[in-house]
Amino acid sequence: MNDRLLRALRREPVDRTPVWFMRQAGRYLSEYRELRGDRDILEAVREPEVAVELTLQPLRRMPLDAAVVFADIMVPIDAVGIGVRIEPGVGPVVDDPIRDAAGVARLRPLEPETDEPHALEAIRLLRKELSVPLIGFAGGPFTLASYLVEGGPSRDHARTKAMMLEDPGAWASLMDALAGIARAHLLAQAEAGAKVVQLFDSWAGALSPEDYEASVLPWSRRVLEDLPVPSIHFGVGTGELLGPMAGAGSNAIGVDWRVPLDRAWERIGHDRAIQGNLDPAVCTASWSAVERAATRVLERAGARAGHVFNLGHGVLPNTPVENLQRLVDLVHERTARADG
Amino acid sequence: MNDRLLRALRREPVDRTPVWFMRQAGRYLSEYRELRGDRDILEAVREPEVAVELTLQPLRRMPLDAAVVFADIMVPIDAVGIGVRIEPGVGPVVDDPIRDAAGVARLRPLEPETDEPHALEAIRLLRKELSVPLIGFAGGPFTLASYLVEGGPSRDHARTKAMMLEDPGAWASLMDALAGIARAHLLAQAEAGAKVVQLFDSWAGALSPEDYEASVLPWSRRVLEDLPVPSIHFGVGTGELLGPMAGAGSNAIGVDWRVPLDRAWERIGHDRAIQGNLDPAVCTASWSAVERAATRVLERAGARAGHVFNLGHGVLPNTPVENLQRLVDLVHERTARADG
Repeated sequence: MNDRLLRALRREPVDRTPVWFMRQAGRYLSEYRELRGDRDILEAVREPEVAVELTLQPLRRMPLDAAVVFADIMVPIDAVGIGVRIEPGVGPVVDDPIRDAAGVARLRPLEPETDEPHALEAIRLLRKELSVPLIGFAGGPFTLASYLVEGGPSRDHARTKAMMLEDPGAWASLMDALAGIARAHLLAQAEAGAKVVQLFDSWAGALSPEDYEASVLPWSRRVLEDLPVPSIHFGVGTGELLGPMAGAGSNAIGVDWRVPLDRAWERIGHDRAIQGNLDPAVCTASWSAVERAATRVLERAGARAGHVFNLGHGVLPNTPVENLQRLVDLVHERTARADG
Repeated sequence: MNDRLLRALRREPVDRTPVWFMRQAGRYLSEYRELRGDRDILEAVREPEVAVELTLQPLRRMPLDAAVVFADIMVPIDAVGIGVRIEPGVGPVVDDPIRDAAGVARLRPLEPETDEPHALEAIRLLRKELSVPLIGFAGGPFTLASYLVEGGPSRDHARTKAMMLEDPGAWASLMDALAGIARAHLLAQAEAGAKVVQLFDSWAGALSPEDYEASVLPWSRRVLEDLPVPSIHFGVGTGELLGPMAGAGSNAIGVDWRVPLDRAWERIGHDRAIQGNLDPAVCTASWSAVERAATRVLERAGARAGHVFNLGHGVLPNTPVENLQRLVDLVHERTARADG
């Protein structure tokens, strides 16, 4: 069993820096496009054999140090009966948005074994197939709230922020419900065989630090505290939130490319592992551009234990597979340690 | 003449902190929607009387300390013959994107008096009408490049970044051309009567600090150096770029809501003025939420000379006018100084 990721998350020495990619099971792979076809993501997740195959595809292409289960952050939301579609090129769409206390009441607690048996079945099947740790994940409370309140992806998250600031009671109920769902979802995935979990609060970086600390952090903490497996907490554009996010209790913080890793690590504290942070857009350029940028990431990470190499956000669909293949090799070669 | 803005940009004492809003001439005003109707923004700019009226509308609603000329960052791009449309709800669309050296060659230098006489005529007309300084503006080199290379708004700016990293020669030519156009546009506006100019490099925050410093900053500096009027340099999500941006030479740096002003000012240096930084999404909420957030902005700015109150990005279309009216009053009342 390749345990580089687990060791890095515990900040133990590793023989090579572990590397995986957010959205490594994705459209940049022709075999992914072929297998998924026109299937909605939520539909694909309901077929465990398909989810297993999509999860395994990138591992056959390159020696990644982790698998990440093919799923979507909206799976548990769909599973508790909120109507959700994932529209191609758009993202999650919620036809009947949640904008007040009555809406929040529609969010019943998640009972993973009965509500999302297929998602858990995929993890159980993968457990037998894998020689690397499997990563399960959930959406963070702000990100889930934004999709539910806005009814879809949003540039400014204005309705969500307005609800947060105008109606703290309804907001707290919404956060309670979403934190409960996210936590139940992570615990069930760990139980089913996920060795690591990641909380994707992708859009939390849209908040000022004050609003994040007052209105999101307490619930992220509730999701992450005392989990049975190591955890990673990720968001985009979180430069000013890195310190508070570290306070939510994960083993590692995922950082986007906007903050150099050494600076990010200072904000997070060196008692945590760090994940990141190559710009996914760079991976769509020529290999020499990728190589230069990846080298810089490794330099900024330095020789300290506890770095997990990743992109700063998900792999873009037009990324050449060879760039990622060469990137995995580069990370492993450049970080090879005799004493690991 | 109300000179609070000019004094604040020179970091001189003021009787009240000056306040204006990015996109204060905008859809949140019913009289704006009525006058603009279905007219394309670029079309409206070609009618100086319309542009003048749209510029003046917000000043009749509230005692703002500056006017900002009704225009668009794509005006000078359109003026040099690149086909641009501003699509409602989308943004600038360029049908024939620029992606290589041959494309860059289509960007001829701007000759403001012959290429954009209407835009300059609006400024000359406004000069006679105003008792507050008029702000002219231009798009920053990365932001203009992104619209031209992507062909429209982009989430990830991947083609732009790929061109920047793969083809430094073509990129430098593109930046040369765009910096030349932006500078000519700002100089012509100052000549016509703009008392202050702002460089909107709105999307520069999508870059890592290394890429920004190597591939954008030199050209921003070229636009901003030795301008005949005070300047403001603005972008969104620029937490890690504030220091480098200050190095481009503007009098003030515009900051979004993600970085508290006291922290931002440390990064910028106290020898510069600062502009910002209320979250525009907050202005769509109840007045009590706006009041709390605005109070926090003023507290973070402190008593130091050189603060220009603004939002952290443009006014959102669904902002209640009363919120902005009360906000202007709040800023003036809370910052009233007997010795100003």
